[in-house]
Amino acid sequence: MIRVGILGYGNLGRGVESAIRQNPDMELTAVYTRRAPESVVLQSKEIPVYAVEELVNHKEKIDVLVLCGGSATDLPKQTPEYAKYFNVVDSFDTHAKIPEHFKTVNAGAKEGGKTALISIGWDPGMFSVNRLYGNVILPEGRDYTFWGKGVSQGHSDAIRRIEGVKDGKQYTIPVDSALEAVRRGENPELTTREKHLRECFVVAEEGADLERIENEIKTMPNYFAEYDTTVHFISQEELTRDHSGIPHGGFVLRSGVTGFNKEHKHLIEYSLKLDSNPEFTASVIVAYVRAAYRMNQEGLTGCKTIFDVAPAYLSPLSGEELRKNLL
Amino acid sequence: MIRVGILGYGNLGRGVESAIRQNPDMELTAVYTRRAPESVVLQSKEIPVYAVEELVNHKEKIDVLVLCGGSATDLPKQTPEYAKYFNVVDSFDTHAKIPEHFKTVNAGAKEGGKTALISIGWDPGMFSVNRLYGNVILPEGRDYTFWGKGVSQGHSDAIRRIEGVKDGKQYTIPVDSALEAVRRGENPELTTREKHLRECFVVAEEGADLERIENEIKTMPNYFAEYDTTVHFISQEELTRDHSGIPHGGFVLRSGVTGFNKEHKHLIEYSLKLDSNPEFTASVIVAYVRAAYRMNQEGLTGCKTIFDVAPAYLSPLSGEELRKNLL
Repeated sequence: MIRVGILGYGNLGRGVESAIRQNPDMELTAVYTRRAPESVVLQSKEIPVYAVEELVNHKEKIDVLVLCGGSATDLPKQTPEYAKYFNVVDSFDTHAKIPEHFKTVNAGAKEGGKTALISIGWDPGMFSVNRLYGNVILPEGRDYTFWGKGVSQGHSDAIRRIEGVKDGKQYTIPVDSALEAVRRGENPELTTREKHLRECFVVAEEGADLERIENEIKTMPNYFAEYDTTVHFISQEELTRDHSGIPHGGFVLRSGVTGFNKEHKHLIEYSLKLDSNPEFTASVIVAYVRAAYRMNQEGLTGCKTIFDVAPAYLSPLSGEELRKNLL
Repeated sequence: MIRVGILGYGNLGRGVESAIRQNPDMELTAVYTRRAPESVVLQSKEIPVYAVEELVNHKEKIDVLVLCGGSATDLPKQTPEYAKYFNVVDSFDTHAKIPEHFKTVNAGAKEGGKTALISIGWDPGMFSVNRLYGNVILPEGRDYTFWGKGVSQGHSDAIRRIEGVKDGKQYTIPVDSALEAVRRGENPELTTREKHLRECFVVAEEGADLERIENEIKTMPNYFAEYDTTVHFISQEELTRDHSGIPHGGFVLRSGVTGFNKEHKHLIEYSLKLDSNPEFTASVIVAYVRAAYRMNQEGLTGCKTIFDVAPAYLSPLSGEELRKNLL
């Protein structure tokens, strides 16, 4: 049994709790929180909740710690610190800061002789590994990543910060015609606007100026101005009823050529269609918990990414079983 | 520079020759053949062709040997034998005999302190690794593999063995409605007939009994009887003009659920659309040549499969570059 701890009990922490139940070789030891422990109610009633201050005292009870905090401020501090005491997995997703995060986490993990897997999830994560496979198989080609249809938390938050907006949700939607052009091997140059649409569902406060709100959304730089954006005003009831889920997904495509005269085209496509973004991310994390545990047992310490993990480490099956059943 | 040798110069060998040109960190040292070497004309005129008997004498000149023989009789002998002297990569694709092949190749590679990667290509190969990723991420789910649209060499051969058939090509075609049912998350139980169609293009000898030929094809056990098969009689000119390519492809899907009440559905889909089956297979092999070379340098010897290869070994980029650009 691999004994797993969770730090942080939001959507992702709940997803990890749930995913552990689907993996019979793992058990959840405890959840750690910065909130008052008694205020945190788990789905698994028998599992204890402790204050984060207790965490290091429990290091003998936990084989792998999953860090479920945010990438902006939590993980840059937590992962390097806890990698000194635990094998850890995080889902750090600020792409531009991954090199820096790697360095600090590596120092912590090396100090403690632990294995730290960072940026595990689907993007970064499974999408990254598919970009890598696509690039090495078809070195002469182009990469395309499309996201959606799915809820973007960052864009939904941006809508809700506008004056007169009570609530809102934003969907990122890949443009079908762009996706089809890539699939036909046309290797299109695509602008930001050509790749994705943004669709917003907004609950306005009573008496708010809808035209101003719509205009503020559509012209917001970095978030919406570069896209074709549509805005729908709906009631709170409709938002709650129709837009409470956290679906997401996307596509990674590699289009390339082979042959002495580059005469043959090839298309590799990887796609995800997810009812729950945090639960799927958590499911990827939990598979990599197994890898972190095993790699540490084999002396593979320090910070690693999804690129450094041989697929066999992810499965509870033996090498022999894998070769027989899945190869 | 990774110095690569090729044994066997058929479609796959030519594909490897071509793929090496697309990878600037590799060079083709020589091609080895069982035919008279002077009868083998490479696309790369400057590369020497030698009789297979010379191969072991050249072991200091080759970092990785790619075995491009057939799975029925060539590879079961060649891979274990040459793994004593070379790091090797093969594309052994008789699924049921992989465990046995692994054992003999492992003994050879261990004896020589070499690294042997077997069953590299797309199925077995990229499809296998996607089945594994799908299974570990969504442990409660179902796997589906569809092949095509593509030419099946074995089925085309079977047609050509029928009396009165001069030439023929067979396409394996996935059934769209079955694929769509899987994508909708219906988890259908699919029979052989429901998953694939078989379409045959046949050139009959003059005066041959077309009805008998069509009937013999459609009722051939194991090859066609279990499928909905269509037969088109065409001229040799049409066959040559329209059916000379070797396209293939397919789909690996994993459909699964997450959540405390298994209330969320997820779909992972990996697909390939290939103009040239042997060139794509060769392109996968050549990426794994790099891995074999590096893994051997790190002391990872013996027989390995695609499951044992961390993705980072496949790329000419450093870990730092990968984290910066692809993660």
